[in-house]
Parts: sequence; structure tokens; C-alpha cells
Amino acid sequence: MTCPWERRYAQRMQGMGSSVIRELLKLTQQPDIISFAGGLPAPEVFPVERFKQASQRVLETHGAQALQYSTTEGYLPLREYIVKKMCRYGIQANPANILITNGAQQALDIIGKILLDPGDVILTEQPTYLGALQAWRSYQADYVTVPIDEEGICLDERFVEALRAGPKFMYILPNFQNPAGVTLSLERRMKLVQIANHYGIPIVEDDPYGDLRYEGEHLPPLVVLDAEYQENQTPDCNGEGFYQGDVIYLGTFSKTLAPGLRLGWILAPENVIQKCVMAKQGMDLHTSSFTQMVAYEVAQDNFLDEHKTVIRQTYKERRDVMLAAMAEHFPLGVYWTRPEGGLFLWVTLPEWMDAAELLEKAIEYKVAFVPGLAFHPSSAKTGHNTCRLNFSNAQPDQIEEGIRRLGMVITMAMDEHKAKELMAV
Amino acid sequence: MTCPWERRYAQRMQGMGSSVIRELLKLTQQPDIISFAGGLPAPEVFPVERFKQASQRVLETHGAQALQYSTTEGYLPLREYIVKKMCRYGIQANPANILITNGAQQALDIIGKILLDPGDVILTEQPTYLGALQAWRSYQADYVTVPIDEEGICLDERFVEALRAGPKFMYILPNFQNPAGVTLSLERRMKLVQIANHYGIPIVEDDPYGDLRYEGEHLPPLVVLDAEYQENQTPDCNGEGFYQGDVIYLGTFSKTLAPGLRLGWILAPENVIQKCVMAKQGMDLHTSSFTQMVAYEVAQDNFLDEHKTVIRQTYKERRDVMLAAMAEHFPLGVYWTRPEGGLFLWVTLPEWMDAAELLEKAIEYKVAFVPGLAFHPSSAKTGHNTCRLNFSNAQPDQIEEGIRRLGMVITMAMDEHKAKELMAV
Repeated sequence: MTCPWERRYAQRMQGMGSSVIRELLKLTQQPDIISFAGGLPAPEVFPVERFKQASQRVLETHGAQALQYSTTEGYLPLREYIVKKMCRYGIQANPANILITNGAQQALDIIGKILLDPGDVILTEQPTYLGALQAWRSYQADYVTVPIDEEGICLDERFVEALRAGPKFMYILPNFQNPAGVTLSLERRMKLVQIANHYGIPIVEDDPYGDLRYEGEHLPPLVVLDAEYQENQTPDCNGEGFYQGDVIYLGTFSKTLAPGLRLGWILAPENVIQKCVMAKQGMDLHTSSFTQMVAYEVAQDNFLDEHKTVIRQTYKERRDVMLAAMAEHFPLGVYWTRPEGGLFLWVTLPEWMDAAELLEKAIEYKVAFVPGLAFHPSSAKTGHNTCRLNFSNAQPDQIEEGIRRLGMVITMAMDEHKAKELMAV
Repeated sequence: MTCPWERRYAQRMQGMGSSVIRELLKLTQQPDIISFAGGLPAPEVFPVERFKQASQRVLETHGAQALQYSTTEGYLPLREYIVKKMCRYGIQANPANILITNGAQQALDIIGKILLDPGDVILTEQPTYLGALQAWRSYQADYVTVPIDEEGICLDERFVEALRAGPKFMYILPNFQNPAGVTLSLERRMKLVQIANHYGIPIVEDDPYGDLRYEGEHLPPLVVLDAEYQENQTPDCNGEGFYQGDVIYLGTFSKTLAPGLRLGWILAPENVIQKCVMAKQGMDLHTSSFTQMVAYEVAQDNFLDEHKTVIRQTYKERRDVMLAAMAEHFPLGVYWTRPEGGLFLWVTLPEWMDAAELLEKAIEYKVAFVPGLAFHPSSAKTGHNTCRLNFSNAQPDQIEEGIRRLGMVITMAMDEHKAKELMAV
């Protein structure tokens, strides 16, 4: 007897399903595996004690409010806090420009809901964030992708070609991009904003790692450059909100505070936020009052700034250990990015190598990563020989050992390939 | 200069927007208004002290886990707890049948995502839950509605007529329905399950108030009756999961523990849950690890059972106060339901009266409710003379005073109407 539910699912579900990579990644959760596959923060740096105090204070002083329904927009003091925080980046916003979401992932879903009709095209970096592809697949979006190099998305003829597809918006991760770890240069940021304004194509700027820079200088977010650009172009645009620009900026507390809270935010022109609020109301009414109030309490007295210093030290060390180990253990012919911040770096294997096959072998040797194909829309015919490594979660000695094993597995694959070539000759 | 964003929104956003009722309801949030408009639990009964202890214990014993990313399915001990809880209702489930959601509202959104294509028809009670209409409007669903009476949805020729529209599923709130407060009788429950099976139309059973019965006998949920029905019909259906039936059951902690946590769940056949998990992954990765673990900790040692006794006492008293005050203050020609549980009752005004106009007047006298039109899909041409009253949130003396004012406002409107009729003669 076949299950009648199979005939009941919506068309959009056909695009979603178990992938080979997802099945492989389940294996990486075995406890004895050194996994570079996830995107998890280091649990050692979670400020557990501070959370204990904050939870007590919230429940003591606003217990009933923390446990009651609240507004869809989010806890006002937290939104005011975010406005102040963003102000330091040069973003002039007010709380009407902010919507609190369940992590930045929900922000992506909301953006899909308010902007995407089936068949709409999104321009993304190649590779790009897996979770965005997942979120927007359910809105039956199509993709055009543009390769990145060490300075981020390539604004050359390939970009111009992609624009011809008439994208609904561009999705850009400017800082320490997930998965590739590269950062968009200032020159390209300015050019991208000009193009967005010239063609009237909005930008969704996803910035989960902006606070986690370990070296080099802070670069202004696209939303700031856009505001500056718009001010010069249309000084009398609109008095409401902070700006009527073309950028939707996404932020999160997941990487600086704790992902288990599920707290992120959308910063956008006020009329866009109003649409987002309408959408979110039907999606889950609002984000947990309790977690919002606890996060606000934890962040008080500049705690978050001090805490970010600790995180940066920890992750910088782990990145350095990983880079040093790769230099030592990876064979010739393998290349990788050198991120100035964030959680990830990107490895390019020889063209003939298949990263998914390599992962199968790696799991035997108790080390794991994510094959690069996962970060490409299914329409992209590239990326089979790439992989993403996370350096924030494993401890330094584990990183060292994991990279040693991975180097060994890659070397073995290369040796085998060479042997086969010789046989064929 | 017009804002370019207006041209960018997805088609589904056209169905969403500010309504007259929504604008009116904003006025009901003034602090000096006695509001029967919301659906808020009584903050006096929140177990704040218990939450304080639970938060401490969670952070002390599993701090890093509570703050870290976790699985989309939800915290396993909480899912096991729900399985045990549901077992008392006669539902044989296992954790693979459960997905934790951000309140039952997210469950509605997920169901829309996995089941609804644009133009799909949903069969609902008339009136029905406003939040479900909001959630599914964004999937561009159509509705057929069937009136309810004191025994719930009417399974007569109007129901048969509605079935001809070929609904994708039926949406039923069997216990102390929101908004009308009525309960589906056992006879109709059994008939509904038979019909669902006969026509192969699944049921989405929304049961937020099932635990809040103040009098009368507990009635089995549709999911239990369906499982029993299926067992007789197809004994060898499938060994996996608890059943391969046609009901998706929605539960929540919002009414028994605290809505500010945003915790609900979906109970469904395992293959349906798998689709829900895929959808939720793209929507927000997972529900807050912290709130799930705190809720689990709070619920330990039968606390939730004891606590429900307190809630039931409090709400029963408030319901009784409201019913007594209505009997005293409402004029002849006004009718209302007498709910055996839940949070709401339903008032039917004379046919000529417009509840939205009445609300305007009521707000002047500092009392508020929700006009019944809000609980009808826009295609329904009925309900203008109805309203929903909440009795859980205001304190007894406020309920007494609010109903006195409301009775006065209704009486004035009726007197004015009579005077106009006399003038016209």
C-alpha cells in the first residue's frame, strides 16, 4: 500500500529532499570523528555564567513579560541596542528599521516570502551559503551565479552576463564569506552599490561574521555605502526611516553570543520591515520574549564587546593552527583561502578530484568536511573539487590532527590517481 | 518619488495587508482599556519561580548544549516527554512522529509550506482561527467554510457541498474552538474521521486548549479516532511510526506553560514529519535549544499537571464571572456560546448590527473585543454581527466592569436603531 501523503505535498517540496551530501554528513556526527563540517561556534567560549545571571535578572524583574506573548517586531530595548550597535558601523537606523528574527536563517525565509515569486532569479556568489539556497528553494527561485576570487565576487563580464537574467535581488556575504572565507574589497563594494543603484536591483547583505575580524581593517557594509550613495543621488528621497535604499542587511547574535538562542535581525527601509512584520506574524507570531530579554540583559555594560575580544583570540588561534597544519600536511596541487576572519576556509583540490568521494574516504580516517557542491545551486556545473573547512569548533590539537589525517587522505587519492594514469599509459 | 520596493514584492503579499480591524485593534492596546480582544493567558499564573530554578539548572548542567546549535527535529527529551503526555490521550507515538516548532503558529506555516500550492482549497469551520488564515494566505490558498453550531462543525448538506470544492485538507479545532468556544461532539468526531478516510482528505487538528477543560468529559482527539478507524480498515498498513493515518495533530505549551517561549509541536506520520523537518531547516534551522531545555526542566516531576489545575481554576472562575455578567448586562436579542473550556466565547448580535462599528463605540467606553469578521476568510460573506471575547486575561473585577460597559454600548446601539426605525415609519 503506497502512502497517500506522497500525492499531497506541494510542488515546492519536489526541490527539497535528501541529498547524497546530507546522507554523508550524517556520518560525520559520530563522536570519534574530527569534524570540520559544521559551522558551530566553540562551546568553550559561551558565557554560561553571564547567561545564568541574566536569566535570573530577567525573571526577577520582568518575569511575567518574559513569559507572555509580545510584539512581532521584537523587544524594543533589544532593537534599540541593535540600532546603537549598527551606528558604530556608520548605519543610521532607528527601531522601525529593525525586525528581530529566529536567527538570520529566518530572515532569509522572510525575505523569500516577501520578495520571491516562482521562477524569480537570484544572483549569488559562487559558492554561496547553503542555508540561503535551502530557504529560497522553497520559493521556487532560480539562480545565476558569479565566481568569486580573493577579493570577493568578480565584477567582470561574467557579472554583466548574470545581470542579463534580470535578478530580483543579489545575495552577497561581504565579510569572510561562508563558505569561501573571502572578503569583498572596498573597491568592489563601491562598484557593487553603484551597479545596484544603476540597475535598480536590491542587495541582500548577509553579515553574520562582520564582528569576527582577526586582522586587517574593518570595511564599511554595503548598506552604509548605499546610504552614502543615495544621499548624493537623491537628497530629498524620503524623511521616514533611516534611508530608502536598496539594501536589506542581515545580522545575528549566533556567532557573537550563542546560536542556541536563535536570535538575528533584519535592518531595512521601514516599508520593507512592515512587509516583513506582516509575513512573520503568520509565520510564528514573534520570536521568544524570554530569549530576547535574556540576550539584551547579557549584552549590557559592554559585555558583548569584551566577549568578542575573547572569541576573536580563540578563533584566530584556531585559524592559524589550521593554516600552519595545511601548509605542512597538504600536498602540492591543493589550494586554499586565507580568511581574515569568520569561521571557514575553502579548499580547491585538483580538477579531477571529487570532494564527495574524498569525504567517504576521509570518514574512514575519522575526519570530515563539507564537499563544495553543497554551496552551489543545482544548476551550477562546478565545485565538485572543492570543500569547506570550519576552524572555530574543534580544539587546536584536534585541528592539527584532523588536518594531518585529511592531508594523508588527499595524498593517498593523488597517489592512486597517478598510479592509474601510469597504468593507462 | 515612489518607492521602488512597492514593485518588488511577491504576489502573495497582495493578500496580506493592514485591515480595518487590525487598525482598530491597535487602539485596544491603550493601558486604560479593559481588553477582551487578545488571546493572552493570565500572567498571574505564570510559574516564574519554577522558571528561575529551571533556567539555573539547565545552564549549570548543560550550559554549552543549551547555547549551541541543535537538531531541527527538536530536543529529544522534550519530544519523549510529549510522546508520554500524548500517550495519556490514547495516542501511540514515538519521537520520530514529533517536530518541535516555534509555537503552533509555526506549525501552521510549515503545514502550508509542505502541502499548499496556490489555489489549493482548505475546508475550515466558520468562524475559524485568524492565525491559520494569516499563515495560509501567504500560500495563496482558497477557502470553503462550513458553519458551526453548539456541537462544532455542521456535518450536513453544507459540509457535503464544501467537499465538492476538493479541499486539500480540513482544518478543525475540536476543543473550545478559537474563536467560538464550542466543542466538537463525539458523534461528529467519529463521523468526520469516517468522511476523511472515505474521501481521502487529511485533517489538520489544532488543539491548543485540549488541556483546559473546566467541566464535562474529555473527548478523544481526531488523531486517536483516526488511528482506531485505520486499524480496523488496514491492519497491516505500515510498521513504521505510530500510524500512517490522515491526521496532523498540533499541540502547544503556550496555554499551559508560557507563550513567551514559543514552543509547540506537530504530531504526524513519520514521512510527514520528515517533510516538515526539511521545510523547517530552511525556515530557521531549529527552535531555540535554551527554551526547549528550560521547558523540559520546568515540566519535570509532574509539575505541568499540578500547574494545569491552577490554570483551570483561574480560567473557570473568569469564564463564570463573564457569563454571569453577560446574563445581567446584555440586552435581549444578543446570544453567546457557553464554552466548557479554553479562553474564548462568541457573541452573536442582532443581524443588522455591525461589530466593527460597535468596537469603535466600545473603545470610547474603554472596552474592547475582536469583531467576528476577522475570523472569516475574505470570501465568506457573513459574520459582521459577531464578536469574540477572551476571558482568560483580565481579572474578575475587570471582567465584570468590562461586560457592564459592553452591555451599555450594545444597549445604546439598539436604542438608537429603534429610534431610527421609529423615525423612518
